[in-house]
Amino acid sequence: MSSSSSSVNVDLARERRGASIDSEDFARWWAGGSVNLEERRSLERYVFEDADLEEAVHPSCLSYKERYEQTIVRSTKFLAKLRQWHSSKQPQFSVSVDSLREFRVLLSGQLGTALFQQSFPLRLHFSMFLTTLLGQGTDEQLHKWLSRAWHMDGIIGTYAQTELGHGTYIRGLETRADYDAESEEFVLNTPSLSAYKWWPGGLGNTANMTIVLAQLYVKGRHHGLQPFLVRIRDEETHQPLPGIDVGDIGPKLGGNGVNNGFLGLRNVRIPRDQMLMKNAQVLPDGTFVQGRPPLLLYGTMVYVRVITLRDVLHGLLQAATIATRYSVVRRQSPIDESQPEVQILDHITQQVKILPQIARGVCYRLAADWLWNFYARVLEQLEVGAGQHSLPELHALSCCLKAVGTDEASEGIDLLRKSCGGHGFLSSANFDSIYGMATAAYTYEGEYTVLLLQTARFLVRQYTDSLKRKVLPVSVTYLRNTARLSWGKNLAENAARALEISALEQTRLAWQSQSMHRQRKLSEQQANSLSGRQLTAAAIAHAHAFLTRNALQELERLRRGSLSPQVSAVLGQLVELFVLDTFLRQAGSVLRWNSVTGAQLRLVERRFEQLLAELRPNAVALVDGFDFHDRTLGSTLGSYDGRVYERLMAEARRNPLNQEPVNATFRSHLQPMMRGKL
Amino acid sequence: MSSSSSSVNVDLARERRGASIDSEDFARWWAGGSVNLEERRSLERYVFEDADLEEAVHPSCLSYKERYEQTIVRSTKFLAKLRQWHSSKQPQFSVSVDSLREFRVLLSGQLGTALFQQSFPLRLHFSMFLTTLLGQGTDEQLHKWLSRAWHMDGIIGTYAQTELGHGTYIRGLETRADYDAESEEFVLNTPSLSAYKWWPGGLGNTANMTIVLAQLYVKGRHHGLQPFLVRIRDEETHQPLPGIDVGDIGPKLGGNGVNNGFLGLRNVRIPRDQMLMKNAQVLPDGTFVQGRPPLLLYGTMVYVRVITLRDVLHGLLQAATIATRYSVVRRQSPIDESQPEVQILDHITQQVKILPQIARGVCYRLAADWLWNFYARVLEQLEVGAGQHSLPELHALSCCLKAVGTDEASEGIDLLRKSCGGHGFLSSANFDSIYGMATAAYTYEGEYTVLLLQTARFLVRQYTDSLKRKVLPVSVTYLRNTARLSWGKNLAENAARALEISALEQTRLAWQSQSMHRQRKLSEQQANSLSGRQLTAAAIAHAHAFLTRNALQELERLRRGSLSPQVSAVLGQLVELFVLDTFLRQAGSVLRWNSVTGAQLRLVERRFEQLLAELRPNAVALVDGFDFHDRTLGSTLGSYDGRVYERLMAEARRNPLNQEPVNATFRSHLQPMMRGKL
Repeated sequence: MSSSSSSVNVDLARERRGASIDSEDFARWWAGGSVNLEERRSLERYVFEDADLEEAVHPSCLSYKERYEQTIVRSTKFLAKLRQWHSSKQPQFSVSVDSLREFRVLLSGQLGTALFQQSFPLRLHFSMFLTTLLGQGTDEQLHKWLSRAWHMDGIIGTYAQTELGHGTYIRGLETRADYDAESEEFVLNTPSLSAYKWWPGGLGNTANMTIVLAQLYVKGRHHGLQPFLVRIRDEETHQPLPGIDVGDIGPKLGGNGVNNGFLGLRNVRIPRDQMLMKNAQVLPDGTFVQGRPPLLLYGTMVYVRVITLRDVLHGLLQAATIATRYSVVRRQSPIDESQPEVQILDHITQQVKILPQIARGVCYRLAADWLWNFYARVLEQLEVGAGQHSLPELHALSCCLKAVGTDEASEGIDLLRKSCGGHGFLSSANFDSIYGMATAAYTYEGEYTVLLLQTARFLVRQYTDSLKRKVLPVSVTYLRNTARLSWGKNLAENAARALEISALEQTRLAWQSQSMHRQRKLSEQQANSLSGRQLTAAAIAHAHAFLTRNALQELERLRRGSLSPQVSAVLGQLVELFVLDTFLRQAGSVLRWNSVTGAQLRLVERRFEQLLAELRPNAVALVDGFDFHDRTLGSTLGSYDGRVYERLMAEARRNPLNQEPVNATFRSHLQPMMRGKL
Repeated sequence: MSSSSSSVNVDLARERRGASIDSEDFARWWAGGSVNLEERRSLERYVFEDADLEEAVHPSCLSYKERYEQTIVRSTKFLAKLRQWHSSKQPQFSVSVDSLREFRVLLSGQLGTALFQQSFPLRLHFSMFLTTLLGQGTDEQLHKWLSRAWHMDGIIGTYAQTELGHGTYIRGLETRADYDAESEEFVLNTPSLSAYKWWPGGLGNTANMTIVLAQLYVKGRHHGLQPFLVRIRDEETHQPLPGIDVGDIGPKLGGNGVNNGFLGLRNVRIPRDQMLMKNAQVLPDGTFVQGRPPLLLYGTMVYVRVITLRDVLHGLLQAATIATRYSVVRRQSPIDESQPEVQILDHITQQVKILPQIARGVCYRLAADWLWNFYARVLEQLEVGAGQHSLPELHALSCCLKAVGTDEASEGIDLLRKSCGGHGFLSSANFDSIYGMATAAYTYEGEYTVLLLQTARFLVRQYTDSLKRKVLPVSVTYLRNTARLSWGKNLAENAARALEISALEQTRLAWQSQSMHRQRKLSEQQANSLSGRQLTAAAIAHAHAFLTRNALQELERLRRGSLSPQVSAVLGQLVELFVLDTFLRQAGSVLRWNSVTGAQLRLVERRFEQLLAELRPNAVALVDGFDFHDRTLGSTLGSYDGRVYERLMAEARRNPLNQEPVNATFRSHLQPMMRGKL
């Protein structure tokens, strides 16, 4: 239970009493056990009891500058508090890949979200800055920097790669570091406007140090992109150092707490030992030594994509929680004219907007967990010199799941907002902020279309391997199965199989398209480019095939474990709803590549509607089970007590614009206008 | 040409030289002739030369209160300027339905958008307030109020209908007006929190008068919802009057200039003659007289929906203009590795995100024009006592076109934003604001699903009429045509016909679903409710069938007129692209209800890709032809000169957060934190 249950809205209370599942039971499973659940709740209590961390004014009412300042004030307090908590629990806590990961989860998870709906600038220090330092610094470099960085002792860091004119295509990055063997220094420059670093979080006004990715040149010879540790602001005064042009890039659709910045470098000199040299070295005389490529080349990228999938599914389920609670509190339009207005969740048109999003979020979670375990397994194998053969599969899956998951979760969040009518449009409902955070992931850490093309390249390669009767990785085994759809009693199984066949055929079509263009004497790259529509469609179809198959398999696996009968039942309904929903949404692709009769489609639709009816009475208990604290939801429409109208009004009254009965512009402008004197 | 062409980005300049169409030629057609075009441009020049109307700070950097104040300052100046212009052009300009409409178009059109990207509070005075006064006031009431209102002489008005707890279902509105025959006054009350008026634009801090929709009671007897003219703030002091509880409802996803407000009424007394009595009267003794229902019951609603379709298509084309220009300036990823990075519009995956949106916007315009003419024709007929038979068709079309148009235009705007990568996410790119304005229309003036259900009711009725061999209105004649798809040479014709068949079959399915539920002894309303999915799908399918057929027919009609060969050719490509794109997007429905072979689908896809290639060289000239002024676009990415990076950086530097090298929170919080003293 997230909050006190005193004076809960009557409709919401009745929903809870009427549910056939116990939300606490579901919450324990969802949290990965009661220990995890209780741990999270006790940390939340510890943090939320601190009145200093409350907001006097809703952030959407603040100016961009005020919002920055409020974020700094609260995030420094939050970090101090978190360190206290940590040192009381784990006194010998020290920095490592695992502890960093753990800390990072706290910052960006439900707790971080509760305090900073649009994130905060110091997060980057722990995510990209420390992670890169740890991963790419030599032992001496770690000795020199790591402990100071971990304690933020004079150091607030960020990571600067993307440039104003360059993103995806990293070979196009312009920032350069020229080695000067005489002084044993690197000289860093952003030689043009488009070379300015642009986007790094915390860079604007907060960080005093950054890792800069730059093209290394030694004696005019290019040695690829390398990471450099650069101080950008004076440790004592925080003034930008000579040659540094730094600032904030301005307001955005979302993530307005991040303080994303720009950075120009003009002949900025750093000592030789501030190139992070774990993977490549420049010796004092300028000799360049290329080390072994890192074990898991795309390691961090894969990791970030798994995390991103988790982040967006949490956003989706926050939105679903808000919309579900609002939809049992809001009453509108009777179904029978002689009766009172019904709870809007009683309209099937409302159920169809909300329940499939809950199912989707839960099945994304199953996929994210599976992917995480796969990633961890591959990492373990790599450490003992095996596992290389799994890298392409891991990479391909992480690409399309991040792309499709982000896109469809964002779409779901927006639909959930719209399901709340006008009130969903208010910032106090918080959908705008949730959407902004989720849709940002469409681009960052791998742009949507670019990622799909990477997955597609893998798929086509596997498909041609299948023609050569090679063994395929497990997630694409279906590419070898050319049997047509045989419609059986199990509708979800039919649907999952139909989606696999669609993915196979879409891959084949992409391959044929490439071949056709190649026959017209085009280069391989031109043929790929012209096949862009077919390739991306194949990757999307693969994601759907994987997500549905994985959900069915994970359900079976979990049921072989220790699921309670209630959780097992409701999870079964959610998985089936997700699979049938995906099948129906992808009908264009499904019907193109499978022969499905009208009668079969009607069966699927009828079952789909039956599942909506079955899930309807448990909708509130289910979203209660995700156990989002009211602070995490940050929504007037979604709080645990369902006092929607009171909260909407209270938030409106808090608005600074309402603190005086007459605004000054009445005398200065409205009245003169009404008197014709303007 | 929107702006000076000095120092235009070289890639953009080359695109313009290479186009096969003349953007001025297209602009003249698009604007409805060179007189219209020149008139708009000269008004824009007149307004934009005024330095007072420029913004010192980007509105996204302001606090909510600062934004309100800046909007009031600028909008009062703008109105004064507009009145000057008007009185110089039309000295005898007086208030009427037509002049009001004209004025309203200025306020909400490209000019209003240029100055107030998120609208402004005084708009409501001219749209809802004056329109309602004019439409529902008696002659005496107009004599008393209209001229004063038109000149804003002591009056700033708005229109208050929606309540905190009630929207769509207007019979559920709680605000009441009780007639007190003794004092000959109405006593107005919002008897509960959920009865508070909520949403009216300008209500928060700006309006001093409002039309309140309230349930009329005379001697305890209910006489339906009636409009009342209520003063809410003192004319001299602007203080809320006794019994009035008024304020702003707070920040929103979009439209943050509107000053949407709430209003509580507690025993507020108004004289009897402030009920607008054109359609119903309360005599001094309390006798209630119901007049003739207005000629066009849904008149204003239909009008507003047509206007909404226009507004959202303009938003879509603004976004398309920005994305197109950015996509020829931005270079990313070579196609051939040996070559430089290409303009991103050369990637087919980018073309497919942008060009169909241009086609969609243009075809929506054809539909909006057609609908407007239909509306005007019906209105004329009604005035001579005919035309009633067209009302259901007009109503049904306006509902589904507003719903589907808004939904798909918003989706298009968001896709266009995402096509600009990270930069599209910046507020200075302006997609966020355009999206916010467009997606608001998903709910206002008729919620999406509710509107679809209204269209569906009409469709099912027409379908059952067709079974009785009745003659059907022209836009649904296809419901009688049960012939199967016969695939011919004309791909667009095949596609349009397939979409009609889908709409017919989807309507039949909805009807069957209703019948099935009714056979289970459910009431008609329950059966309708349970068929919600099928009914809304039918309405969407109808919108697609109408939009595609209409585009093909309007193209033919226009070609019989005076189109230049260039415009005719490019318009033909756009219409064909729109029809094929709709067919492909609706593949799920199309393939369910039509038998289309894989070879036929590949033909459509190949033609679709060919159209992308044909339109690509004219993309910039086309969007130039929409003739959006840089101020209207309001985008760092979309300006006429294409100086994207310079503008991004200039806008970032203008941010108040960048006006001092070190923010105060460094000394107060960051430094103490780094010293472990927090």
